[in-house]
Amino acid sequence: MALVIKLSGRIFDDEELVLRYASVINKLPGKIGVVAGGGELARRYIAVARRGGASNTFQDLLGIYASRLNALLLISLLRDAYPRVPATLEEFLAAWGGHKVVVAGGFQPGQSTATVAALVAEAVGSPVLLNAANIDAVYSDDPRRNPNARRIPEMRYDEFEKILHSSALPGGYELMDVWSLSILRRNCITTYVFDGRRPDHIEAIARGENPGSRITC
Amino acid sequence: MALVIKLSGRIFDDEELVLRYASVINKLPGKIGVVAGGGELARRYIAVARRGGASNTFQDLLGIYASRLNALLLISLLRDAYPRVPATLEEFLAAWGGHKVVVAGGFQPGQSTATVAALVAEAVGSPVLLNAANIDAVYSDDPRRNPNARRIPEMRYDEFEKILHSSALPGGYELMDVWSLSILRRNCITTYVFDGRRPDHIEAIARGENPGSRITC
Amino acid sequence: MALVIKLSGRIFDDEELVLRYASVINKLPGKIGVVAGGGELARRYIAVARRGGASNTFQDLLGIYASRLNALLLISLLRDAYPRVPATLEEFLAAWGGHKVVVAGGFQPGQSTATVAALVAEAVGSPVLLNAANIDAVYSDDPRRNPNARRIPEMRYDEFEKILHSSALPGGYELMDVWSLSILRRNCITTYVFDGRRPDHIEAIARGENPGSRITC
Amino acid sequence: MALVIKLSGRIFDDEELVLRYASVINKLPGKIGVVAGGGELARRYIAVARRGGASNTFQDLLGIYASRLNALLLISLLRDAYPRVPATLEEFLAAWGGHKVVVAGGFQPGQSTATVAALVAEAVGSPVLLNAANIDAVYSDDPRRNPNARRIPEMRYDEFEKILHSSALPGGYELMDVWSLSILRRNCITTYVFDGRRPDHIEAIARGENPGSRITC
Amino acid sequence: MALVIKLSGRIFDDEELVLRYASVINKLPGKIGVVAGGGELARRYIAVARRGGASNTFQDLLGIYASRLNALLLISLLRDAYPRVPATLEEFLAAWGGHKVVVAGGFQPGQSTATVAALVAEAVGSPVLLNAANIDAVYSDDPRRNPNARRIPEMRYDEFEKILHSSALPGGYELMDVWSLSILRRNCITTYVFDGRRPDHIEAIARGENPGSRITC
Amino acid sequence: MALVIKLSGRIFDDEELVLRYASVINKLPGKIGVVAGGGELARRYIAVARRGGASNTFQDLLGIYASRLNALLLISLLRDAYPRVPATLEEFLAAWGGHKVVVAGGFQPGQSTATVAALVAEAVGSPVLLNAANIDAVYSDDPRRNPNARRIPEMRYDEFEKILHSSALPGGYELMDVWSLSILRRNCITTYVFDGRRPDHIEAIARGENPGSRITC
Repeated sequence: MALVIKLSGRIFDDEELVLRYASVINKLPGKIGVVAGGGELARRYIAVARRGGASNTFQDLLGIYASRLNALLLISLLRDAYPRVPATLEEFLAAWGGHKVVVAGGFQPGQSTATVAALVAEAVGSPVLLNAANIDAVYSDDPRRNPNARRIPEMRYDEFEKILHSSALPGGYELMDVWSLSILRRNCITTYVFDGRRPDHIEAIARGENPGSRITC
Repeated sequence: MALVIKLSGRIFDDEELVLRYASVINKLPGKIGVVAGGGELARRYIAVARRGGASNTFQDLLGIYASRLNALLLISLLRDAYPRVPATLEEFLAAWGGHKVVVAGGFQPGQSTATVAALVAEAVGSPVLLNAANIDAVYSDDPRRNPNARRIPEMRYDEFEKILHSSALPGGYELMDVWSLSILRRNCITTYVFDGRRPDHIEAIARGENPGSRITC
Repeated sequence: MALVIKLSGRIFDDEELVLRYASVINKLPGKIGVVAGGGELARRYIAVARRGGASNTFQDLLGIYASRLNALLLISLLRDAYPRVPATLEEFLAAWGGHKVVVAGGFQPGQSTATVAALVAEAVGSPVLLNAANIDAVYSDDPRRNPNARRIPEMRYDEFEKILHSSALPGGYELMDVWSLSILRRNCITTYVFDGRRPDHIEAIARGENPGSRITC
Repeated sequence: MALVIKLSGRIFDDEELVLRYASVINKLPGKIGVVAGGGELARRYIAVARRGGASNTFQDLLGIYASRLNALLLISLLRDAYPRVPATLEEFLAAWGGHKVVVAGGFQPGQSTATVAALVAEAVGSPVLLNAANIDAVYSDDPRRNPNARRIPEMRYDEFEKILHSSALPGGYELMDVWSLSILRRNCITTYVFDGRRPDHIEAIARGENPGSRITC
Repeated sequence: MALVIKLSGRIFDDEELVLRYASVINKLPGKIGVVAGGGELARRYIAVARRGGASNTFQDLLGIYASRLNALLLISLLRDAYPRVPATLEEFLAAWGGHKVVVAGGFQPGQSTATVAALVAEAVGSPVLLNAANIDAVYSDDPRRNPNARRIPEMRYDEFEKILHSSALPGGYELMDVWSLSILRRNCITTYVFDGRRPDHIEAIARGENPGSRITC
Repeated sequence: MALVIKLSGRIFDDEELVLRYASVINKLPGKIGVVAGGGELARRYIAVARRGGASNTFQDLLGIYASRLNALLLISLLRDAYPRVPATLEEFLAAWGGHKVVVAGGFQPGQSTATVAALVAEAVGSPVLLNAANIDAVYSDDPRRNPNARRIPEMRYDEFEKILHSSALPGGYELMDVWSLSILRRNCITTYVFDGRRPDHIEAIARGENPGSRITC
């Protein structure tokens, strides 16, 4: 069975975490698609480009190249991974047949890696998306600002969409945007949001636990 | 100066219209990017695929292939057009340098050709996007259902977004979706929506007229 | 063992037929190459291009793009098919290794999909080519015009070539042209011509029957 | 104006000739397409492959690779040539815009380089094809065997087709086959056949002379 | 006339420097090839991969991806640059025709970006290579360790090779290795080594000055 | 287990030898990478290009194209070989997963096929490289000139490097250059050098014999 994992770009800022994720993925059974974010690296390059007057297109392309560097780092640590970072969904699908793991970064300007992960999950028919995020769960409000923010372990996409539109979503755009949400919902893919600093949560989810939040259609 | 034109897929259902658009584009000065929709052709192929249980990914890919067939038809009628239909924004940009016109269809699953047009306009630095639509202007409500629907010749993206969210937008998804709107707004690209059955409106807009609706940031 | 099937473009004008072909192919054992024609869709786009003065090269390219749309529709309905439509014979061969089915449309201007099917059969070493045609068998003359036209269930390529040169071949160019014939003959590939409206004939041929015509070297 | 030149593969067996052709092409005005044959090199590699039981597909691919080596040799001697050997007609067309000369070898199995030259002439809209052949003109019969063979300086494609079908065509398949003939005829491209050992004949033809044979529609 | 500039990867660790290099290159006349190193970014990713047991091939690929991210950052700041980072020398050459600047990073494992720069200079026929290095000139020994190290403003490749073999070359492998040296020497390309923190030195060299070291054949 | 074989280009000048190598490789168990040299064919084409003033880049590209023709000849004679000649190491790696044998020629200008073989051995994790050379073993000096030259059956890379630098290495550049040596050494790959006219030596080495020279780290 297929499984798709979205790794927040922040994970790649922590050497130890990357090695542990590689180790967890190497032990997983079945076929696995992974999508890496651009993280701090992306933000740093985009900032320079913006200062120099680069277009939005190139700012986004820099984020994509950064996420691909992250993706390749993970590939270098995996057994039986497709040795390239696919640049399009069609290349991802063509590579899917021949390898246990395929790791992508961004695909194109104007699109988050959260959306790439949703497109990949849809394309390979994965019933779940594991979102290793910058926050440990979905909250009713930003817990860093609002001490009364409620942790929501289970919700439907409709409920999640309202939180998304309230603009108070912690982790924000990178966690999930409107486009990725609509793709996940139209395929009834269950999303698990969990703390990206805990690679072991992947094994917990595989055992049937829900260490963060679960979003269903 | 660059100009980007979005052609509703419906235009390609009318042989006469296609020939007239080719004629208008051949006479335009400067560099021109065109994005063709999939239209009725796309809808027909997607319907068969859905009936046979094809995934959303392949349904979208069929729409993309249909839009590329439409794009190639236009290319075959143009002088000095890039002879291929670019499959990604990066290929579009690489082709942009060497030809007067580059014509694209869809780029990837989960994305409207309206969004492709917005991405292209952003990438080539076009200050305007000409949207040859299935309706002659933006209305406050669907004029086919509500006789009191108001035609809106001028509006800002904020106002347009509210109409978009009210779900009463005639022409709907294909005219402009949330994603294309956000790309156009972040670049302050002025969008002209006009009746796709009137290729001559392109010339009118070039003369400074506003035959349908104009959306600004 | 390899098997190559040529599907007349007309098949794709009939939604029901496409679904039934997908179903038959999904049940076939072994590796299968399929080549889809452009059909009515191709003819319609080529007619517009010709009216607008497009070159023969682009008219042919439109036919190729139309056949690729047909090919993708079939792919979307198959299990374990290569997810792309190969654009060249070399890409077809590279894809052949990793999937049960590979589906192509046209390859290049100036070449029929009948020839593509012959090249594919040669390349994958298929001993037979199943030609799902616009006619139910090869006749001595066009049966729609000549009531005395004789149905020929068995013939050699030499005999078939004479019928081909007599210009009275019903189904004509799309059934088989001089180039595809020479490729099939040089490889001693047995061709079965049968009524394209009968997907079940593929199963009949697999059982050793000859529902239409059989051409041998 | 565009001009397309077909160079017999034999030319590349003669170092001196290759250098002289490069020199002539470097002096020609306008845009030039060149197609190189595989010659003796192709024949030698194909012979080994056939002895070892290689398929027809790979025998043809070896001929194509040999012709591409010849094409690259010519490119290395030209000023302002596209630096790659295009592998398909679509790549040829995309390269055509940006360079004075584009040089191709073969495109795909089952197809002569004579046909490639015809497809290229059609695609770039060249009114003439210069065929630097293994013979100095078209004859009514093989002059090496029949002392009464008549040299034919002017003929129409219909007449030429009869000679082609009589199987007595000296230079044979490589000079022109049925497929290339049909492409040239459908575009009314005038073909000049001349002695491939005489690069200066290109200049003569440019001056309005006809040093070998001229075939018109 | 063509000019090739090699930018040490370290330059990309300094935001200010990158912007100033972009500004200098935007003002240069003629055609310009640029090759970006991987710098600290490459070293950091390679270190993680090595710790996790990645192969040398993937360690090198990570360095290449890092250098391509640097290359893209520069591209985003330039006017009329090829919008992609070419992945091979052949792609570099094909892009060279249509743009004022082409920017590459690494090409393949086992190869320094110094070698890429030498190959690019050879391919585009540049008479000089400007090496913006981690040191301000070539010294007889490492000046950070040996206070008696002599600064050498002018030398021939033979002399430089001896310094290179003495293993005391400051800046070491990234400045120039045996392979890049042999390519530069076989083409008699003059190399200028100068302090990478001084983009203005490019203008000084253009004025005929030699702010660091000059190596000739 | 993976095995990489480097075939001297000279082998392809002898039809019989090519067939015998194909036969030996078809019988080998496990996964096999092969790298073909350009041989006499490359030298002949390069000589013409040099006479005509072609750049070093194009001279090297001609050698690469010649080696790819040799590679394709071998592919045409193998069972279950990747049907294309990979143009880059990344393409080689992507093809490696799906086939028993992958055969490459050269990758890029300025690089020997000996280096390609070392890069391939490193990339696929082969513990040995079998070098089918133009000489039967490594000697202390050129045996054709020095009757006292000593045949060295076993040596370490350090010792081999000294011989390499003494410039007396028979077979020279094509056998192994500084770059390939450094790649082999950094991976501790054992190299067997043996007489390229003896395909049976591959089987001998597989049995644990050392018919020529063995170089270890």
